[in-house]
Amino acid sequence: MTTSRRMKLGASFYPSGYHVAGWRYPGAVPDGGINLAHHIEVAQGAEKAGFDFFFLADINGIWDPDIDAVSYTTWSAKFEPLTVLSALAMVTSRIGLVATASTTYNDPFNLARRFASLDHISGGRAAWNLVTSATASEAANFSRDSHPDHGDRYARAREFVEVVTGLWDGWEDDAYGFDRANGRCFDPAKVHRLDHRGPFFQVAGPLNLPRPVQGHPVMVQAGLSEAGRDLAAATGEVLFTAQPTLDGAKAFYRDVKARVVRYGRDPAHLSIMPGAVTVIGQTKSEAEDQIAALNGLLEPKPGLAFMSGLIGDTDLSRFPLDEPLPPLPKTEGPKGRQQLVVERARRDGATLRELYQSIALTSSHRLVYGSPVEVADQLEDWFVAGGCDGYNIAPAHAPQGFTDFFSAVVPELQRRGLVRTRYEGSTLRENLGLPRPATRYAAATEAEQTAPDPETIAS
Amino acid sequence: MTTSRRMKLGASFYPSGYHVAGWRYPGAVPDGGINLAHHIEVAQGAEKAGFDFFFLADINGIWDPDIDAVSYTTWSAKFEPLTVLSALAMVTSRIGLVATASTTYNDPFNLARRFASLDHISGGRAAWNLVTSATASEAANFSRDSHPDHGDRYARAREFVEVVTGLWDGWEDDAYGFDRANGRCFDPAKVHRLDHRGPFFQVAGPLNLPRPVQGHPVMVQAGLSEAGRDLAAATGEVLFTAQPTLDGAKAFYRDVKARVVRYGRDPAHLSIMPGAVTVIGQTKSEAEDQIAALNGLLEPKPGLAFMSGLIGDTDLSRFPLDEPLPPLPKTEGPKGRQQLVVERARRDGATLRELYQSIALTSSHRLVYGSPVEVADQLEDWFVAGGCDGYNIAPAHAPQGFTDFFSAVVPELQRRGLVRTRYEGSTLRENLGLPRPATRYAAATEAEQTAPDPETIAS
Repeated sequence: MTTSRRMKLGASFYPSGYHVAGWRYPGAVPDGGINLAHHIEVAQGAEKAGFDFFFLADINGIWDPDIDAVSYTTWSAKFEPLTVLSALAMVTSRIGLVATASTTYNDPFNLARRFASLDHISGGRAAWNLVTSATASEAANFSRDSHPDHGDRYARAREFVEVVTGLWDGWEDDAYGFDRANGRCFDPAKVHRLDHRGPFFQVAGPLNLPRPVQGHPVMVQAGLSEAGRDLAAATGEVLFTAQPTLDGAKAFYRDVKARVVRYGRDPAHLSIMPGAVTVIGQTKSEAEDQIAALNGLLEPKPGLAFMSGLIGDTDLSRFPLDEPLPPLPKTEGPKGRQQLVVERARRDGATLRELYQSIALTSSHRLVYGSPVEVADQLEDWFVAGGCDGYNIAPAHAPQGFTDFFSAVVPELQRRGLVRTRYEGSTLRENLGLPRPATRYAAATEAEQTAPDPETIAS
Repeated sequence: MTTSRRMKLGASFYPSGYHVAGWRYPGAVPDGGINLAHHIEVAQGAEKAGFDFFFLADINGIWDPDIDAVSYTTWSAKFEPLTVLSALAMVTSRIGLVATASTTYNDPFNLARRFASLDHISGGRAAWNLVTSATASEAANFSRDSHPDHGDRYARAREFVEVVTGLWDGWEDDAYGFDRANGRCFDPAKVHRLDHRGPFFQVAGPLNLPRPVQGHPVMVQAGLSEAGRDLAAATGEVLFTAQPTLDGAKAFYRDVKARVVRYGRDPAHLSIMPGAVTVIGQTKSEAEDQIAALNGLLEPKPGLAFMSGLIGDTDLSRFPLDEPLPPLPKTEGPKGRQQLVVERARRDGATLRELYQSIALTSSHRLVYGSPVEVADQLEDWFVAGGCDGYNIAPAHAPQGFTDFFSAVVPELQRRGLVRTRYEGSTLRENLGLPRPATRYAAATEAEQTAPDPETIAS
């Protein structure tokens, strides 16, 4: 072991695995997205293995407007994340619960309440993966003609975070407490209206529940673009990213950590966790056989549609499959990922078929495959080289891909002292080594308390 | 037993009981709204007693803009309903789970997903108590200067229900199923875009999860006004109502059932369940002592503020406490309840203090109190006389008020053959004797299938 840092691990739960055709793999659970027992199995397994969190990605609709293409996948039959994580809170006790929720298609008051409720129910294990949504087909489910452009989405997201954290702060930590004698359930001097008035939102507050156990649920983000990196540096505590190469990962890591410092924050308080799509065999060649089998199970139609959606709703079906990718138009989709795909096509001279097969397996994430020891080696490499603080682990097919990781890779990483053998704390914040934020009102109230108001609970 | 109908029962969960000062009552759980163990105790107790459902009321904010008044109560420290009901789904197996959600301050796509998710997670036990929201202070949490007027709220509610049920219907019942051989997870010919375009909403769909277990989660409503009764008659399956007198209850019952028939529906498919605030003692005089004790625990400030909010944000603090209620201005609040309060004041010549004490105990609901046998008698009376199909039971203080009802009143009602001794089915719909709605697309698809499309799964 070459470092005393602990590698952070997330279990990135896709219904039947990360691969587009993962549900067809022998032993995979085909209805994983609406199979509660499967969710419980993976969440409890990850907790037993000491993972930091269980993570649910999300989009607000089917993943492509073409229902026929979608019918080849099991991804668009899934529980809403906060709903199922509330259920999973009852059958787990230490693992963090990360729900994706969009700032473009939600309302800050409702979302603040729901995350605060999950945080209370789970004893301080909630986290919010903030996304601004990426697909035009989501807009069509929310009475909008088009998806708002990238700049507007991020401006709204920043204000959204301000409102949500302001609502969480509205009840000071010691506001709630009972005085049967004078009839008060809480100290009214320690519960504050927000009275936010911004360009996107006007929100009075306060929230109708006390401050979350963690102060704020942990803030997770996933932006690759300039605006995304900046929002994460300002407000994020975990950053998901797609990094297929170590050089790229290191450059990204340096850039983001420098931005965190520029915002006056401790760089250790933003954990950078690239995705790692894992394929684990007894041997490397057995893992390669699994990949070949997954390629064989992938029909061209969902492969092309998934690639199109990933790079921003570009219709690729009119291009020949066995020729290099033609120039792509600009879109309002996720800019960072489009750039990765284009760079990769140029670098490798890959044909469209080769690209969609590769993208169906990893999207634009890193592929980590081989024997358990080889997988552990690859995870350790980047971690030690300054490419990441840990990984969001997404097995190509599930549940076997998770089971193998928990039972074979985790013990290997534990032997190397890289991952925990027991949880340090009871909240996600404690387990990630993150500080518990003070409420923005705490200082003001201390000042007020020097001149007590006879109308308050102190009387 | 004078009837073969079964009396329906709901457990109306308020944090520490229905009474404004219920949390101060000896033995009450003061932090009931954020006490998960207390929720579990009541939900499991209600299930053991054969209740039809566990019900959570809700507003989107603190119950009054005056934080000082709110601090006398424990009502504004509570979990968001759908979040905590998802958790309760894991520790119960038969009881229905009813969440209140507003059509004014939610989005139909999000709400359709969340209720469908809860219905899947709970094995078909979800119900939606549709409200249009009643208070101006909720508007201020959602970037609105004022609460929309009553007519607009109901017009939006009707379209909201159309969108939500349309989204639930988008996946036909047999759409989801796996064909590993041809690579399909569902039959694309049986998943339908909604393409709704109305004055309030434009929603493409389809939803990203299969049809709810119950087809539609059970539809609960609570309107007393003309528009409210009409919406319930058109789309409701359970109707909550506040009825302090039997004559009023009978007139309401006849009126609503006639409306249901006018909409071409079976009147048995809308259960009318007035609220019953219960106070149970060993004897009637012991129950009266409990009421006197609760009155003694009620401070004037929260008593007046609660009454003001109930009748539509009218400030009553400037009126003398021991004189009759002066004429009230018109508001955009809940019309039906304002009328009840005004009628009652005129009927009884009650002073403001007498009114707020009575309202703090029952709002404008029926009070049912006495020994377990006397409580059972009163519940049977209205049920047999054509006043209701059952009750939404709200003990004045909790958990004791629930425990006494489960252990003493329910066995008495069972002896009389009025309530069940075991659940008939596994879904809420089955237990309420409600039909499972067919999807609106089922017939169309049957027609299409006579001329198969080579592009569909049938090929």
